[in-house]
Amino acid sequence: MGLSEFALIERYFRGVGAQRADVTLGVGDDAAVLRVPPGSELVVATDTLVAGVHFPQDSPADSIGHRALAVNLSDLAAMGARPAWALLALTLPEADEAWLGEFARGLGELAHTHEVALVGGDTTRGPLCITVQLLGYLPSGAALNRGGARAGDVLFVSGTCGDAAAGLAIEQRRLTGPAEARNWLRERFLWPTPRVALGEQLRGFASACIDVSDGLLADAGKLASASHLGAELAWSDVPLSEPLTTLLGERRARELALSGGDDYELCFAVPADNIARLFAQLPAQQWHYTRIGALRATPGTVVVRDGSVMEFSHSGYEHFV
Amino acid sequence: MGLSEFALIERYFRGVGAQRADVTLGVGDDAAVLRVPPGSELVVATDTLVAGVHFPQDSPADSIGHRALAVNLSDLAAMGARPAWALLALTLPEADEAWLGEFARGLGELAHTHEVALVGGDTTRGPLCITVQLLGYLPSGAALNRGGARAGDVLFVSGTCGDAAAGLAIEQRRLTGPAEARNWLRERFLWPTPRVALGEQLRGFASACIDVSDGLLADAGKLASASHLGAELAWSDVPLSEPLTTLLGERRARELALSGGDDYELCFAVPADNIARLFAQLPAQQWHYTRIGALRATPGTVVVRDGSVMEFSHSGYEHFV
Repeated sequence: MGLSEFALIERYFRGVGAQRADVTLGVGDDAAVLRVPPGSELVVATDTLVAGVHFPQDSPADSIGHRALAVNLSDLAAMGARPAWALLALTLPEADEAWLGEFARGLGELAHTHEVALVGGDTTRGPLCITVQLLGYLPSGAALNRGGARAGDVLFVSGTCGDAAAGLAIEQRRLTGPAEARNWLRERFLWPTPRVALGEQLRGFASACIDVSDGLLADAGKLASASHLGAELAWSDVPLSEPLTTLLGERRARELALSGGDDYELCFAVPADNIARLFAQLPAQQWHYTRIGALRATPGTVVVRDGSVMEFSHSGYEHFV
Repeated sequence: MGLSEFALIERYFRGVGAQRADVTLGVGDDAAVLRVPPGSELVVATDTLVAGVHFPQDSPADSIGHRALAVNLSDLAAMGARPAWALLALTLPEADEAWLGEFARGLGELAHTHEVALVGGDTTRGPLCITVQLLGYLPSGAALNRGGARAGDVLFVSGTCGDAAAGLAIEQRRLTGPAEARNWLRERFLWPTPRVALGEQLRGFASACIDVSDGLLADAGKLASASHLGAELAWSDVPLSEPLTTLLGERRARELALSGGDDYELCFAVPADNIARLFAQLPAQQWHYTRIGALRATPGTVVVRDGSVMEFSHSGYEHFV
């Protein structure tokens, strides 16, 4: 690279994100030293984005930086954790300074929003590949895992689904439509909003939670199966955005909402006894979540439409592949 | 890939490494949940190995697994921390099951040695690239950072230097010699030994510490410069292994010991007042470390031979490139 690793780190990544009083030692030593609050458990996730696999090669650098952190924030949100510290392992073919500046800005702005400090990392030369490790914490014993749901628990999802998959298709020129709808969906792919505040609020209400990264049907199925249950989703209750229905019509939009990935919404189960309290303390309209079905003892995840179980394939996505 | 990500994780990485009672939630959820001991600070490092950059493309898979963890263990050792938990972000061109089994075994055996649990990670498709994030802890306030040395502190290094660089050259058929020496040096590259126990023992003796990954001269220089000092190394005190001098002769061996990377030894500074206690409690012959010089107020890192400052280039390494 033109710049040495040391110079790169100095120039672009020192001071990225929030400054936190609980960072004893940040970027620039062999490791970071951090203080986890007493009475807390530590929560740690890592996710990798590979160019050409997780984002188009020509994606805007600030969006790549944003998404590399967002996917990890979404994992911590799904645990109900508060994010605090991130490490960045960045593999780059060459040190393109304009690209690095934009990448660091995209990552840094999202880090600031969630008061996350960048405390370390590694830069290496190779094919473009970004791994972020995110650390956070929550009160001991309060984690929302996937396996805590019981039969009869109600299943909810935040936001709307399928938007990011449509946005990616637009970005790759596999899908088109009115400019306003196109732009909105494209933004949903490039700048996902991890539901960090909602995840923290769900502690004490939800019995299980997962983030929707592989598609609602697949991820609801993982939550159900980790809880040794099945799930029944209601076709007509799957939440859709207006731009998505504008572009695809309702049927294809709903198919994509069930199958498309990268939404980074939260899918969570709430025991019937907690529902009234949930609605009272976290009004659904304010917190943007929708009831989509329930968990049941019978294994398998099904979608029900007009009282019948649908045969569901990934055709919604394949339509415009 | 032939195997889905989920099946890969299940088959090869669940249960890799130690089982630890302080893991509330390990592999298989959105994030891991861990308990840091009270009175401790958390220590976190991450390092990436890229195929063709950090190891030859055809390196044995178990060695790659070992090295991916070892480089991070070495970072924690340099802080004086006790390692505890690891996450693995593995990017693979294809799911070669024999390769994965060997990789997981190499990583797992070293994890067991240091009682490290693999608690999470991410597998993605792409060019071979491995990022390990390692977490550990130490008593609050006890971290050995790079910047704590003072002028007059004595500089030591563990083990012998230059071996791994020679081993890599042998692996790449750029260097040859007697089989026994060749094999020993090759092992030093493929199976580095992070100095974890020494790092922990150095808390209370050392004023600063760094691991030797980029070469002794470069890394001693980083320690000095982080401490706002310079360093003076004694040419004839740089520790050499017998196989290295057998292959290269003493002069070239010493050049390589100063310039070659990947040794993962510890370079540390000890105040004069602590030296007697250090030698008494950590006998140098048993713990394998050598005095190589001292820190001084004058900036810059120099090597002194027969009373004169040497002009030093990377020629030792370039000889057989």
